[in-house]
Amino acid sequence: MTGFPERADLLIRGGHVLTMDRAFAEHSDGAVAVTAGRIVAVGPRSAAAATTAATEIDGTGTIVMPGLINTHCHAAMVLFRGLADDRDLDGFLRRVWAAETAFITPGTVGIGATLGAAEMALGGITHFADMYWHPDATVAAARRIGLSLTTGPVFVGFDGVDRLPWPARLQEAEAFLARHRGAPDLQLMAMPHSCYTLDAAQLAEVAGFATRHGLRIHIHGAESPSEMALVASQHDGARPIGVFDRAGILDRNPLIAHAVHLTEAEVARLAATGATVSHCPLSNAKLASGTAAVGALVRAGVSVSLGTDGASSGNDLDLWKAMRHAGLMQCLATQDPAALPARDLVAMATAGGAQALGLAQETGALEAGKRADILTIRLDAPHMVPLYDPYSALAYAAGREDVRDVIARGRAVVRDGRLCADIGAEISAVRALEQQIKEKGI
Amino acid sequence: MTGFPERADLLIRGGHVLTMDRAFAEHSDGAVAVTAGRIVAVGPRSAAAATTAATEIDGTGTIVMPGLINTHCHAAMVLFRGLADDRDLDGFLRRVWAAETAFITPGTVGIGATLGAAEMALGGITHFADMYWHPDATVAAARRIGLSLTTGPVFVGFDGVDRLPWPARLQEAEAFLARHRGAPDLQLMAMPHSCYTLDAAQLAEVAGFATRHGLRIHIHGAESPSEMALVASQHDGARPIGVFDRAGILDRNPLIAHAVHLTEAEVARLAATGATVSHCPLSNAKLASGTAAVGALVRAGVSVSLGTDGASSGNDLDLWKAMRHAGLMQCLATQDPAALPARDLVAMATAGGAQALGLAQETGALEAGKRADILTIRLDAPHMVPLYDPYSALAYAAGREDVRDVIARGRAVVRDGRLCADIGAEISAVRALEQQIKEKGI
Repeated sequence: MTGFPERADLLIRGGHVLTMDRAFAEHSDGAVAVTAGRIVAVGPRSAAAATTAATEIDGTGTIVMPGLINTHCHAAMVLFRGLADDRDLDGFLRRVWAAETAFITPGTVGIGATLGAAEMALGGITHFADMYWHPDATVAAARRIGLSLTTGPVFVGFDGVDRLPWPARLQEAEAFLARHRGAPDLQLMAMPHSCYTLDAAQLAEVAGFATRHGLRIHIHGAESPSEMALVASQHDGARPIGVFDRAGILDRNPLIAHAVHLTEAEVARLAATGATVSHCPLSNAKLASGTAAVGALVRAGVSVSLGTDGASSGNDLDLWKAMRHAGLMQCLATQDPAALPARDLVAMATAGGAQALGLAQETGALEAGKRADILTIRLDAPHMVPLYDPYSALAYAAGREDVRDVIARGRAVVRDGRLCADIGAEISAVRALEQQIKEKGI
Repeated sequence: MTGFPERADLLIRGGHVLTMDRAFAEHSDGAVAVTAGRIVAVGPRSAAAATTAATEIDGTGTIVMPGLINTHCHAAMVLFRGLADDRDLDGFLRRVWAAETAFITPGTVGIGATLGAAEMALGGITHFADMYWHPDATVAAARRIGLSLTTGPVFVGFDGVDRLPWPARLQEAEAFLARHRGAPDLQLMAMPHSCYTLDAAQLAEVAGFATRHGLRIHIHGAESPSEMALVASQHDGARPIGVFDRAGILDRNPLIAHAVHLTEAEVARLAATGATVSHCPLSNAKLASGTAAVGALVRAGVSVSLGTDGASSGNDLDLWKAMRHAGLMQCLATQDPAALPARDLVAMATAGGAQALGLAQETGALEAGKRADILTIRLDAPHMVPLYDPYSALAYAAGREDVRDVIARGRAVVRDGRLCADIGAEISAVRALEQQIKEKGI
């Protein structure tokens, strides 16, 4: 353990510190010191007795833990939350795509992604992976709220909501990388939508693009029975993982969203190629897509993390609910109530998220040298009393309303349950857009 | 619609009023007037322009709806929340029963049930059905917080945590009824625990007791595979519903908690006898008990409501999560994302709860003559913006943190998200008990 410095930018003094490091080290009365956006020391509060800091947060009576990591999201889709309930993936996509075609512009993505990022920050998410049209607007939104972001150019085989034909799309992807490469708050990936919206040649072209630029790939795959049928019909009876493999997608150790419908051989192939998974249990249930075999993936060595998916399937961006629901779905699917214990659930939402993104050196745990992505969780609501086990309380009783402070890269983005940024203008703009969408009658 | 009076005790002016009456009437800018604990008028705000009231609540910018009804709960078990995670029903019961044997007294039930009722009130529950040891203490706790309660004497075949042998248990049940009969805030039922903790003769005796006193019965039944096996071994291969039927339990149109494992014939028999169901999806998932066939029950004409179950399985008493999870589980189990639409979920938690309890004339909807059990729900959190459909927002985005005001029988029990009762002493007492339980190492 690194010693506490005399002087820090930020010191959280007191609180039950869950480091979520590999040993699951805890400090029942702990402290965390931060300088220049990085954690410089974690340990018992007594070790920090001599430390002073420009900003001090009293952690007494809270759990201090790493920020949550949402590994699959379409933040701006909060614009359409609740617009397409009680439909399967096909029906959902048809209605949402109609709304997107009519209303998605860089401007509306900007207000939507700002609202989504605000919701995520209030819910304790400090880093999210986002795949959506006009990603520059999402980059700006994440910065406006203060969150770190994994994103990149989106690829579909048709012209898309952003009206880019294929050659222009590839050019725009190059330009996006040129604009954003090297930004400390961004991780860039190539983001082909799926193998039912891109053909084999296009997928191979995206894999080549990713190879050229040294990028990982983020893609939807093996989500629903309807997708499995569609992919089979488009790719000579093949299954998504096989299509990915042949197109070279698996060579870019992809982060695969959903991964519900896999054979044993496909699980083994994902493990062998270093692919990782974003498990989105709320979306998979709501769209009746199925239950991912989280246990089998983990046993095979695949890193499994948690995603909220877009709010139009979810319908919110709440990783606490995803954590809890992931556990409940595994209990039901395996008929084993110990299938995914509470501590593993908290790990999936923190260190596991960092690992799935390839950012385990950067975030996901409270350790010296890592980014200062830190939460304090209130324990004074009736539902958090008594507290026999902090992991159980976090996985099975806590909610976004218990998030008190959110520090992202050393900066407070939520204090005392309130967002530090003022997004009143964006909320008004979303409400105005809601009226337009209602009037259009989509 | 009854006209608004000149003068009322309480007037909620403004807000999107969801009445949850049979026609699902709504008033987009509505008002609700209350006098002497009853709703006296519901309608458009303009109709209440001339009404004055001793207390006025500005409902503008909220959803105004009936209080939630939790039809199966063991409130005092919040004392053990998180003490027995990641176990099946058997393992869970073994550990919880050890803790109960060592620590349950009328005093600890009192502090536990107060904490549980406080949690429920903050989450918008205005009426709960509770089965637990020392029910007088739960009656007092519900009154302390201001909630209405369905409860009654608990029957088990062994001596139980309350150390009552069978004859004394029956005497105590009579005495309990004598103490509480006629209380306006209580609905009394006989509460035999299950047909694996009572034998056939004892069940018949409880049915007789209920008949003598004109009571309905509340009982656990057909919850888990392990219960099905246990009941078969104890009752010559029979199944719970058959045991209930032969013992006369079904003649007291029982409220059956769980009802997960039913045959078609059993569903039909429940419908024919007027039995109702408390569906507890979070508990059923966490204990890997299974998924109740809600659709089949409803189609057969059985009234299905929602319960949180005890916090030691749940691990909280959150009917918003139960609502959402009920929908998600039905989507998954039936592979039909429209299996249980959002509006039906909200109905299950309100009017459906009243119906399952036989209190449809009393509560569950905002209608003149009914008890003034009313919530206002904030719509200003990012996760509630935009709002295309209020039922979808309630079922799939809202949470307990959005509950602003809770009126129960005309009295405010929560205002602006804060409990009106001060339960600081009970919270301290629960924390002291938590230390004792940890030290004992259960």
